[in-house]
Amino acid sequence: MERGASMTTLAVFGAGRIGRVHALNAAALPGVSVRYLVDPIANPGRDDLAARLRAHVAEAEQVFADPSVDGVVIASSTDTHAALMLAASRAGKAIFCEKPVSLDFRTVEEVSAAIAASGVTCMLGFQRRYDPNFSALRDRIASGRAGRLEHVVMHTRDPAPPPIAYVERSGGLFRDQAIHDFDMARYLLGEEIRTVYAVGACLIDPAIGAADDVDTAMVTLTSASGRFVQMVNCRRAPFGYDQRLEALCEREVLYVANRPRSDLVVASAAGFLTSPPENYFIERFADAYRLEMEGFLALLRDGAPPLAGIADGLEAQRLAEAALASTRSGLPVQLGPDWRPDAA
Amino acid sequence: MERGASMTTLAVFGAGRIGRVHALNAAALPGVSVRYLVDPIANPGRDDLAARLRAHVAEAEQVFADPSVDGVVIASSTDTHAALMLAASRAGKAIFCEKPVSLDFRTVEEVSAAIAASGVTCMLGFQRRYDPNFSALRDRIASGRAGRLEHVVMHTRDPAPPPIAYVERSGGLFRDQAIHDFDMARYLLGEEIRTVYAVGACLIDPAIGAADDVDTAMVTLTSASGRFVQMVNCRRAPFGYDQRLEALCEREVLYVANRPRSDLVVASAAGFLTSPPENYFIERFADAYRLEMEGFLALLRDGAPPLAGIADGLEAQRLAEAALASTRSGLPVQLGPDWRPDAA
Amino acid sequence: MERGASMTTLAVFGAGRIGRVHALNAAALPGVSVRYLVDPIANPGRDDLAARLRAHVAEAEQVFADPSVDGVVIASSTDTHAALMLAASRAGKAIFCEKPVSLDFRTVEEVSAAIAASGVTCMLGFQRRYDPNFSALRDRIASGRAGRLEHVVMHTRDPAPPPIAYVERSGGLFRDQAIHDFDMARYLLGEEIRTVYAVGACLIDPAIGAADDVDTAMVTLTSASGRFVQMVNCRRAPFGYDQRLEALCEREVLYVANRPRSDLVVASAAGFLTSPPENYFIERFADAYRLEMEGFLALLRDGAPPLAGIADGLEAQRLAEAALASTRSGLPVQLGPDWRPDAA
Amino acid sequence: MERGASMTTLAVFGAGRIGRVHALNAAALPGVSVRYLVDPIANPGRDDLAARLRAHVAEAEQVFADPSVDGVVIASSTDTHAALMLAASRAGKAIFCEKPVSLDFRTVEEVSAAIAASGVTCMLGFQRRYDPNFSALRDRIASGRAGRLEHVVMHTRDPAPPPIAYVERSGGLFRDQAIHDFDMARYLLGEEIRTVYAVGACLIDPAIGAADDVDTAMVTLTSASGRFVQMVNCRRAPFGYDQRLEALCEREVLYVANRPRSDLVVASAAGFLTSPPENYFIERFADAYRLEMEGFLALLRDGAPPLAGIADGLEAQRLAEAALASTRSGLPVQLGPDWRPDAA
Repeated sequence: MERGASMTTLAVFGAGRIGRVHALNAAALPGVSVRYLVDPIANPGRDDLAARLRAHVAEAEQVFADPSVDGVVIASSTDTHAALMLAASRAGKAIFCEKPVSLDFRTVEEVSAAIAASGVTCMLGFQRRYDPNFSALRDRIASGRAGRLEHVVMHTRDPAPPPIAYVERSGGLFRDQAIHDFDMARYLLGEEIRTVYAVGACLIDPAIGAADDVDTAMVTLTSASGRFVQMVNCRRAPFGYDQRLEALCEREVLYVANRPRSDLVVASAAGFLTSPPENYFIERFADAYRLEMEGFLALLRDGAPPLAGIADGLEAQRLAEAALASTRSGLPVQLGPDWRPDAA
Repeated sequence: MERGASMTTLAVFGAGRIGRVHALNAAALPGVSVRYLVDPIANPGRDDLAARLRAHVAEAEQVFADPSVDGVVIASSTDTHAALMLAASRAGKAIFCEKPVSLDFRTVEEVSAAIAASGVTCMLGFQRRYDPNFSALRDRIASGRAGRLEHVVMHTRDPAPPPIAYVERSGGLFRDQAIHDFDMARYLLGEEIRTVYAVGACLIDPAIGAADDVDTAMVTLTSASGRFVQMVNCRRAPFGYDQRLEALCEREVLYVANRPRSDLVVASAAGFLTSPPENYFIERFADAYRLEMEGFLALLRDGAPPLAGIADGLEAQRLAEAALASTRSGLPVQLGPDWRPDAA
Repeated sequence: MERGASMTTLAVFGAGRIGRVHALNAAALPGVSVRYLVDPIANPGRDDLAARLRAHVAEAEQVFADPSVDGVVIASSTDTHAALMLAASRAGKAIFCEKPVSLDFRTVEEVSAAIAASGVTCMLGFQRRYDPNFSALRDRIASGRAGRLEHVVMHTRDPAPPPIAYVERSGGLFRDQAIHDFDMARYLLGEEIRTVYAVGACLIDPAIGAADDVDTAMVTLTSASGRFVQMVNCRRAPFGYDQRLEALCEREVLYVANRPRSDLVVASAAGFLTSPPENYFIERFADAYRLEMEGFLALLRDGAPPLAGIADGLEAQRLAEAALASTRSGLPVQLGPDWRPDAA
Repeated sequence: MERGASMTTLAVFGAGRIGRVHALNAAALPGVSVRYLVDPIANPGRDDLAARLRAHVAEAEQVFADPSVDGVVIASSTDTHAALMLAASRAGKAIFCEKPVSLDFRTVEEVSAAIAASGVTCMLGFQRRYDPNFSALRDRIASGRAGRLEHVVMHTRDPAPPPIAYVERSGGLFRDQAIHDFDMARYLLGEEIRTVYAVGACLIDPAIGAADDVDTAMVTLTSASGRFVQMVNCRRAPFGYDQRLEALCEREVLYVANRPRSDLVVASAAGFLTSPPENYFIERFADAYRLEMEGFLALLRDGAPPLAGIADGLEAQRLAEAALASTRSGLPVQLGPDWRPDAA
């Protein structure tokens, strides 16, 4: 592309792990400039990132006041998402936001409504939709070769329980981790979920229970047309990050497998030892994050609709809230577009 | 062994697919004679089997009246099991019986009680307990190397929906197919199940729905100590019989995988094509059936307790009944030793 | 089949490991009676086998004098093969003989000529030709789907060096182990080999070197039409028996893989551990031996030509002799139908 | 690092496929500036690359005259390597050069001698030595866990024959492709090769034969201490790039496997279809090229010795020349430090 003519200018909120991934992916795209990096916590990581991006460390106000900013990437801590999204929508900036929008469902609803009313485009960070494996699976179903999708099984297990400080701010296993599976369920089935049943317990790390969260959960979803989804969500897989999907279709079963970290195989009297998978989501979904940021750029430049919008964030979170309610009541939850969790 | 001195004499009821497997496995054991084959349906298959066994085609009465018969193998149609078990217990014959004991839960209870009262030993046909893979998995957990078992995931999918005549007599997906998974859940956890939630639907073959059965089901179990089990049960896997288990433990995840039918791999521009697994349970569990019959012989000769007794049959079926009740009510079922389904 | 009418009567020479396999496989075929078991070494194994077969322990003379004997299975020690084959051919008995015919190549030539002159049918024990994997691979090439076969790579590694007493009588790595690979090369290529280059050394067990044998060898074959075959032959694979083949064709690469012994997979922080393969050829080729004996029966009953005849034994051994000569001279050996090793 | 203080300045020769990889990898390293890009062929690819690097498109003379240039990356066409290396050594620039140094062995010897005499450091582009899989394999052997390395088997097959124009300038299969395997053989064994036997033919693409090259070759190497290496080198693997290694050690067999391109698995009645591997070396060895350039930087900054130096290039090429000579004579070639091919 010709430089200058059509530079796209971005601001990135959050210089932590995922903010860094998005910022570097954005900056590597031709014709993209990350002008601002916003993070209230001054530290060498932030400043080093700003230097690599050739970005200014700035305040939010500065970003929203700068008419040259085309879009914002919100990857700051969850409790800042809603206010930043509202400010961006008021300033007319296109939004990319990490999930979840808020730990409070009513806030998610309000932000969704405000964004819809503002007319700004908004993309939610469900990167699995951009992952080459998941999208190849979805394409294959869409192609008709596999036949009708009948049920889906998903496994998501973190390599180890996160630090308890993270757990306490995470919103819990369903809003933090399982939300990606809820989103994928809707995405693959192409319809809404009507019934959610979930069980959850603290079987691994008592500190998680003390924080009123669960570390192990099993979820069953029934879709509007009566198809089923089963999910295992867990804070531990002894071998590393375990994130798999299995889709039973009429003529084929389609799997997304874990990717071994290495291609070395060691054979001995004990058997054949292959490498554990990529350790965690940053590595596992490196391609997905790259493609996701390309998707945001296509949205900014050509108005190409994102694979996941604000409404998808709302619906995935509704499922997370319903699963949480189910674990507490011990009963399945019947969902409709008006279902919302009881106020806390 | 010295011949004559300690021949063990058996009678086999049922000359169908599974009866044939048990009869031939029994006859291949040193020191075992299958003296009688009982099947009311005269056909070449029965007579050929009898010839191979050097067995007499006989009536049930003749078997129970013959004091030389040490034990009976009941592999006839399900509706005959209960009466044959009662007759065997009255005659003092050790019993090996295929699951389920009866499609009527109260009958199962009555037979269990009668057998317990009679003092005859009784082994139920949960062959997976004898399968080398499942038993290696259980041994590894028992050894302590894997650490505490935290949750279990099981997949059982038939290669294709069975003939509708079979479906109609089968008692339905839960009593017919999933009962093995219910049994395995109890066997691996080493404790009873307290809550059962199941969803089921006819997504594959409308004839199964017309027969008031489901072809797809998903089940969540919660054990007495709060651990979880998730099951997928289905009447179709496009590639053949799909029977897998995954056990998340503290330090290891243990899997029983499907076994490819062949070791030929074909690589082309499309990728690497490995063979589908063994087509169905007769082939997949060939070793398990052999070892199971050895288990029955050890029971007869040395009084070695079987891996699955009549009480296991009762409890597995209680879970099947609860799952069925759950699919009908839409609610989880809380179980206790006195739970039983409503009379039909 | 109707009993009596067309019983096929066999005699088995050799009650050792492989003799036992053949005898039991033969006896399990419908309409086959193993009337005689010949083994000069009286031991419980022989007598137990005879009892299971309902066979007479006999002398060779008795076998050849009995006109009811249709065929002989020669699985005795290698040094007895030639004399038994000649006796059988004189007596007009169809022959199944384990490889090699003799450790002395001129004797192999003489026996081949005598058998050809006698008109008796003779089948050689190259069981891989009957193995379902290798035959599926060959069928796929024959079907034309894979395109022209361009080169072949084979690996054969024993789980551990055999006892030195075995090594001393074995004829060495090429005649004892690699002969199966030489045979498979000719079988798959469908043409003769023109050049053999081999290197061999004692890298594993010095006792093998002391016995004037090698434990590691690498062989390159060039066929008459200029295609290539590469072989690794070794007396050790730390994980168990390693027997694989890879066939590069125009449109596909076809592999015969090892079969894991178990389907249990153990995943931990170290990675995913799958089971070692079947330990050795008796287990690995159990199906092949069964089908091979069916092939001998089809030969006896219907005159169906065996997959490997006496000429195949001669040619495979010619390659073994050439490989040995190559390791000694350090030069490739150019072969023709008249090539034979120098007299020792 | 602090900018300015210790910037490392490079020039890259060659803006083609591999030059581009090296240039971008170098530029992505902290503290590295690619100041010059030298390629006589003006085209948009070159200019676009220069723009991305913020590099000047320059003549060779300019590079060698600029005292700020610390090192040169030579990735231009093979026929330019020797002259550029000599010029760089005269100018005192550290050298990274793609293999081969020259298609003419005497030129390789002369360049090697000149570089040795000049005292400049020189690294050869044997990227597999930097590949995480190959280096993990080598580390495992070095750790002693696997036991003594006894033999090595390597497969290298291109996905399809290259354009004939490439073949004609490539120096042939041995100098172009197999040279990496020759290098790996020396690297893993840690000793020199004494005997080379190779067969080669044109079995795939007659145009390759017309260009006096082979498309299929098989090589056997014997090391100074008597250990063996077997290689398959081929211009076709129907499924994509096939680059594998197998190392038999005393207690373990170590494998470097191909990496599937995708983690989607499609199961159907035909079996389980996994994805083909990465299509070619640029993708397959992306990590290796990155690490290799880090290695060159470490050499420049800290004098850390490269994994492959100019002497390794000479010895690998000696093996390639010997293999070529062997295919022509039909005889094994005995090597020593003075062996060189006959002058053409």
